[in-house]
Amino acid sequence: MSQNKKKYLALCGGVGGAKLALGLSRVLEPGCLTIVVNTGDDFEHLGLLICPDIDTVTYTLSGVVESRQGWGRADESWNVLDQVERLGGETWFRLGDKDIALHLVRRSLLAQGLSLSEVTARITRSLAIDHAIIPMSDDPIRTEVVVDGGVMSFQHYFVKKRCQPRIFGIRYDGVEKAKTSSGFIGALNDKELAGVIICPSNPFLSIDPLLALPGVSELLRTLSVPVVAVSPIVGGRAIKGPTAKIMQELDMPVTQEAIADHYQGLVSGLMIDSVDKATASELNKRLAVHTSDTVMTNTTQKVALANQCLAFIDSLDKSS
Amino acid sequence: MSQNKKKYLALCGGVGGAKLALGLSRVLEPGCLTIVVNTGDDFEHLGLLICPDIDTVTYTLSGVVESRQGWGRADESWNVLDQVERLGGETWFRLGDKDIALHLVRRSLLAQGLSLSEVTARITRSLAIDHAIIPMSDDPIRTEVVVDGGVMSFQHYFVKKRCQPRIFGIRYDGVEKAKTSSGFIGALNDKELAGVIICPSNPFLSIDPLLALPGVSELLRTLSVPVVAVSPIVGGRAIKGPTAKIMQELDMPVTQEAIADHYQGLVSGLMIDSVDKATASELNKRLAVHTSDTVMTNTTQKVALANQCLAFIDSLDKSS
Repeated sequence: MSQNKKKYLALCGGVGGAKLALGLSRVLEPGCLTIVVNTGDDFEHLGLLICPDIDTVTYTLSGVVESRQGWGRADESWNVLDQVERLGGETWFRLGDKDIALHLVRRSLLAQGLSLSEVTARITRSLAIDHAIIPMSDDPIRTEVVVDGGVMSFQHYFVKKRCQPRIFGIRYDGVEKAKTSSGFIGALNDKELAGVIICPSNPFLSIDPLLALPGVSELLRTLSVPVVAVSPIVGGRAIKGPTAKIMQELDMPVTQEAIADHYQGLVSGLMIDSVDKATASELNKRLAVHTSDTVMTNTTQKVALANQCLAFIDSLDKSS
Repeated sequence: MSQNKKKYLALCGGVGGAKLALGLSRVLEPGCLTIVVNTGDDFEHLGLLICPDIDTVTYTLSGVVESRQGWGRADESWNVLDQVERLGGETWFRLGDKDIALHLVRRSLLAQGLSLSEVTARITRSLAIDHAIIPMSDDPIRTEVVVDGGVMSFQHYFVKKRCQPRIFGIRYDGVEKAKTSSGFIGALNDKELAGVIICPSNPFLSIDPLLALPGVSELLRTLSVPVVAVSPIVGGRAIKGPTAKIMQELDMPVTQEAIADHYQGLVSGLMIDSVDKATASELNKRLAVHTSDTVMTNTTQKVALANQCLAFIDSLDKSS
């Protein structure tokens, strides 16, 4: 395929985004795909730097992910956490032994002065990943949710409270002072860039932190190549996670229109699921719409959706 | 026994000292024994704070120690380190899964702002230890050895190089600026203190760092209660570790006289092994000497030597 020689940038969060990132990694040659990952979910725990989205993408692309849940390692053991519990330590965030190994290596490399980008490159290389996985920033950005009674850290909301509290707002603590990673800026400025794919991750929790970084929205708006988003909404529901619940709590209808509104001005095309094709003609008045099967439960579907994204970008490319 | 109600302070390093500390813990009631432990061997590794001597004493007193080697945990597994190796991380320092759990809890509590003394108290309590195990200082002190060609960190010398380099000198980096832990100072100033036992640890690597801390030697010298040392030398050899080798390299004879010289002015009594009893009468001209079996290969011997130490202190007590 001709697009295999072109370069693409994928913006992505955790499990949902990682599925499409895997599809893209199977379709595109090494050197042609840059995956920039949300770090707003990162936090310090047990003295470790936890980077849930980076690790989910890393484990997914290296083929070691626990495939049923979509995150963590397959064939995991829990010897460390069992003992942490006996010693009175915190165990609400589940880290298996293999997963802890990665965290120790990351902490060790960070302590040596390497940036999170450099550490991620080292770890992904050691797991034989030949595509670039890049944190959106090397500086700490911490997503927080405004709930009844105050502000809650993201993992507290997401894991400890299982997304139960009603959200009144979301903020990305540190984003104003953070520097966008040089790999992210470099990919946006790359002369060979053929298109950008916003993966079907949670727009508010996974994608907006990337878009809030200095320079990113401006660069995206002025790109001469297509930017397409894959909607995380299918038939009025989110495939996974709290996207639909959050949309309702933020007074948005759970529709493709609302997703189009959200990405208004940033994307030239929206990929929606075939079940929503009735809405395509109305949406088409505002932006390019492509319908496809967007639910990815196996590798074939991930590869197929990746190919659909590349074809969609190709169709929108003014130069072609 | 009458001495069971009195308070004692044990100064101790790793494996050798922990054996006598275990004996003392079996003889003395909770509240009557304070064990102050060397932290000069501590270092940062894989982003964790490794405290080999504190952990050896902790694991020994809680009964979970790997008893053949004398350090680390029994029934240990190595899932994390296996994976660290695959990820290209450092594995020369062997940390098992259970051991890593303790290190994560320690790192986590330190990150919450607790001192090493407070963290150690929490961990030992969670392992049902009812005697006080106290780090000599809450500040970082790092033992370094002067070798041919430069200075080497202690663990580099001890584990990586297996004590092979010749030592020309030893220093305790940070000791001048470090604060002696309040638990250590408190035990030395305790009005109910009946005696101090210097365990048969390496005098240069395990005991001298404690003695080099601000105020410690002065307090020991002016104590009105006996201070006794158990010699780590038996028949011209060290029971374990590089003590004899280091003595030779530092131009000392490997004798009880040299140990007496080393602790000159600090101790009122020296406990030597029965195999060296021929030297006792000559040594007796300089300080009180007690002979006993000092090799401890089982709990009975550890308890017996502990009782011998307490009886020795009792015999030296001017008030009794």
